[in-house]
Amino acid sequence: MKNHDLHITNSLTRKKEVFQPIKPPFVGLYVCGPTVYGDAHLGHARPAVTFDLVFRYLKHLGYKVRYVRNITDVGHLENDADDGEDKVAKKARLEQLEPMEVVQYYTDRYHHDMEKLNILKPSIEPRASGHIIEQIEMARAILKAGYAYEVNGSVYFDVARYNMDYKYGKLSGRVVEEMVAGNRDLEGQDEKRHPADFALWKKASPTHIMRWPSPWGEGFPGWHLECSAMGAKYLGTTFDIHGGGMDLLFPHHECEIAQSNAANGKDAVRYWMHNNMITINGQKMGKSLGNFITLREFFEGSHKSLHQAYDPMTIRFFILQAHYRSTLDFSNEALQAAEKGLQRLLQAMETLERIKASKTSSVDVSLLEKKCYEALNDDFNAPVAIAHLFDSVRTINSVKDKKESLSSDHLESLRNTFKTFVTDIFGLSGEISKQGEESGQIISGLMDLLLELRQEARKQKDWSTSDKIRDALNGLNINVKDGAEGSSWSISGKN
Amino acid sequence: MKNHDLHITNSLTRKKEVFQPIKPPFVGLYVCGPTVYGDAHLGHARPAVTFDLVFRYLKHLGYKVRYVRNITDVGHLENDADDGEDKVAKKARLEQLEPMEVVQYYTDRYHHDMEKLNILKPSIEPRASGHIIEQIEMARAILKAGYAYEVNGSVYFDVARYNMDYKYGKLSGRVVEEMVAGNRDLEGQDEKRHPADFALWKKASPTHIMRWPSPWGEGFPGWHLECSAMGAKYLGTTFDIHGGGMDLLFPHHECEIAQSNAANGKDAVRYWMHNNMITINGQKMGKSLGNFITLREFFEGSHKSLHQAYDPMTIRFFILQAHYRSTLDFSNEALQAAEKGLQRLLQAMETLERIKASKTSSVDVSLLEKKCYEALNDDFNAPVAIAHLFDSVRTINSVKDKKESLSSDHLESLRNTFKTFVTDIFGLSGEISKQGEESGQIISGLMDLLLELRQEARKQKDWSTSDKIRDALNGLNINVKDGAEGSSWSISGKN
Repeated sequence: MKNHDLHITNSLTRKKEVFQPIKPPFVGLYVCGPTVYGDAHLGHARPAVTFDLVFRYLKHLGYKVRYVRNITDVGHLENDADDGEDKVAKKARLEQLEPMEVVQYYTDRYHHDMEKLNILKPSIEPRASGHIIEQIEMARAILKAGYAYEVNGSVYFDVARYNMDYKYGKLSGRVVEEMVAGNRDLEGQDEKRHPADFALWKKASPTHIMRWPSPWGEGFPGWHLECSAMGAKYLGTTFDIHGGGMDLLFPHHECEIAQSNAANGKDAVRYWMHNNMITINGQKMGKSLGNFITLREFFEGSHKSLHQAYDPMTIRFFILQAHYRSTLDFSNEALQAAEKGLQRLLQAMETLERIKASKTSSVDVSLLEKKCYEALNDDFNAPVAIAHLFDSVRTINSVKDKKESLSSDHLESLRNTFKTFVTDIFGLSGEISKQGEESGQIISGLMDLLLELRQEARKQKDWSTSDKIRDALNGLNINVKDGAEGSSWSISGKN
Repeated sequence: MKNHDLHITNSLTRKKEVFQPIKPPFVGLYVCGPTVYGDAHLGHARPAVTFDLVFRYLKHLGYKVRYVRNITDVGHLENDADDGEDKVAKKARLEQLEPMEVVQYYTDRYHHDMEKLNILKPSIEPRASGHIIEQIEMARAILKAGYAYEVNGSVYFDVARYNMDYKYGKLSGRVVEEMVAGNRDLEGQDEKRHPADFALWKKASPTHIMRWPSPWGEGFPGWHLECSAMGAKYLGTTFDIHGGGMDLLFPHHECEIAQSNAANGKDAVRYWMHNNMITINGQKMGKSLGNFITLREFFEGSHKSLHQAYDPMTIRFFILQAHYRSTLDFSNEALQAAEKGLQRLLQAMETLERIKASKTSSVDVSLLEKKCYEALNDDFNAPVAIAHLFDSVRTINSVKDKKESLSSDHLESLRNTFKTFVTDIFGLSGEISKQGEESGQIISGLMDLLLELRQEARKQKDWSTSDKIRDALNGLNINVKDGAEGSSWSISGKN
């Protein structure tokens, strides 16, 4: 382990706590994945990037992390309620497809978007529809423990009964007694004994497509049950971290806590982590709200609210520049600022590779690494670490301009720190494909040769040749800068 | 529909039959996918490419195809037998992982390899472990119909009983009575009434990890059951085409036929299609045989049997150049020939874009399209269609060399036919990334400039400069050829 001082803000205790895994070096991490009935939007990118940072940092610290991120392909009803149509089934009906065709299509597209954002693949990506037995078993266990009841082929969680032994609402701070008022009177709701009760299993109406046999007749699982069942299956009945968006805190995660306690007599999760929302003009961005911009639209610039296309790395950097527990407001200006900031950072890394070491350093850069670790150990505070890196960008540029100098030790330490944090932990890359790399080497070799020929021509006052070279390079959008220690070049439009 | 004359060789009848879908324009296509406990090898590329061709051609003809290709992540035991360890579980044990981590890892890598081969994603990609209930239900139906028996928590298919009402062996031509002799006496085999019987459900030993509750106690499904259950779920109890490698014909597909008839009283599949094997020195290539080369090794050239790296498109073309029902022998020479052939084809397509139309044609190319359709309608005979395309390559090159001429109608028709068959139906592309294209343009521009400088230096007998250029280019693996009409260059290792 590189560092034992990691602190995590636990949504359950509302405190920043020292992270102590149950069984080090292993860490179990469960994060709620997408409901695959539409393209991922900016709101989906935030938990993906946030918990990718968590995953990468924990691995960097030396933990062996099993990261489970589910795919919700059944049971998630409209308005996140216990009534209304299944989101996937509705899309299937509208597009005249088998529900699993809808699931496959949007899962493939989700994976594609995540790859663009450089999100590492989770260790296991279980599907709700692939774990019906596990969900039925859990519902049975809850029934057996007396915390659920069956009505007309459906099984509901008995919140009032549970609240006598445990505390329903301990995550969200809601009080059961007050939940009556806020609840709408929806069709079928009358099956429930209490408005706060929620479905573990729903009887399928005759027209419902996605249905499985169960001890209570044909039906389908309630939305909250999948995460409890799959978390327990792949991470055990108690595991380390459960993450998700703050919009899932209630009712989804509150219900998960209740289910685990009811079935197993204990909390499943040690640390609850919630990323805050992305807003547009202060309003939550969401599919159900209709004000979302899909990631593809960002990548292509194909939405009326966008002034330009944004590189996936810009989106990633934009998200990392805010602490995950803060809200983040979308605007073109903010994204353009992120784009510029990222370029500055990546350019500094390129510069770092080219800088020559001096005998001594005029600046002290030895604290950077420590400061970055301190920031990330403080509840994954990426923006603070990024600010420290930007301080060093200024130093790097001064060294480039010969205003400061760096010893070879300091230079090496800077290179390592940037690589560790920017590339490995933040997952930011200006990476080009292997093919691109090869081409890059060839271009670089050809440019060395051309600049040498130009230099020689100038020495011999062969202006016609040196002009020819300059003009031809200009024609290829290659800018040459002559300096005291030779010429440098860059391809415009790329930097 | 563009063409109604599609013929398919049906492995069941051993005849070439006219293809008549059950409910046009819909076509149901099921293909056995990989068991995800290792990287995909060349043997996996063949069914993938073969049924990608079938999928693409059927869609091209105007059919609405639902293509289901499964992921086997449970129940496939070693040696394809009913005893021995589960292939995925064994890998998980060796690598000290949860089985679903193994599944996720190799599924992700499989998808990556398929993408490289330009294989279209199937409409639905169901997992065996995600359909345990469906498999239990099917085993129950077979038990209820009297074609299976339970022994000690396992359920076996009763081949002898089935054979009284149906014909077991009708696909493979095997005779039940003769199967006794060939069967090895394996542990646990004694539970079976007849050596030809096969497991529908296996009792899990106490140490078995992947297990689910069932009416017969905790266990896991037999390998053959998943395809019957998932085929029925997503394509209905009777559907059009079932494909797979010839190595799956017996026992896997024979058992599938028996299961469907036993459960539903009717055959599930109208057309059985089997691609032949890829051999190395005449021997089947397979994971269990230990003589396989993974696709990644081909793409990287990182296997001792390979003389070079092979582009995924070369592999694809190599497979398409043989009819899917013929064996295909791997050798470096054959792959290098495929590489050259593909280059010739793609180069001709580039030439086609540049050729100028004449007022009249000196050759008749109007039959090409028809011939290509005829070839594909004849049991997807890609090699014959490719041969026709190569005939036209000669014509194209003659037109380029001004030895022949093409009218604008003929030119347009050739362009369309090549695009339709080479790009859309065969899925062959010379596509490079946009970034690669940009770099290519820069390299090309720099080379123009350098060759001009070299030319000038030579003119002025400045041998030192011209040598410097030559040496530097050699150092970058760029070969320059001087010819009557100026110099040309190529990057070695790329062509």
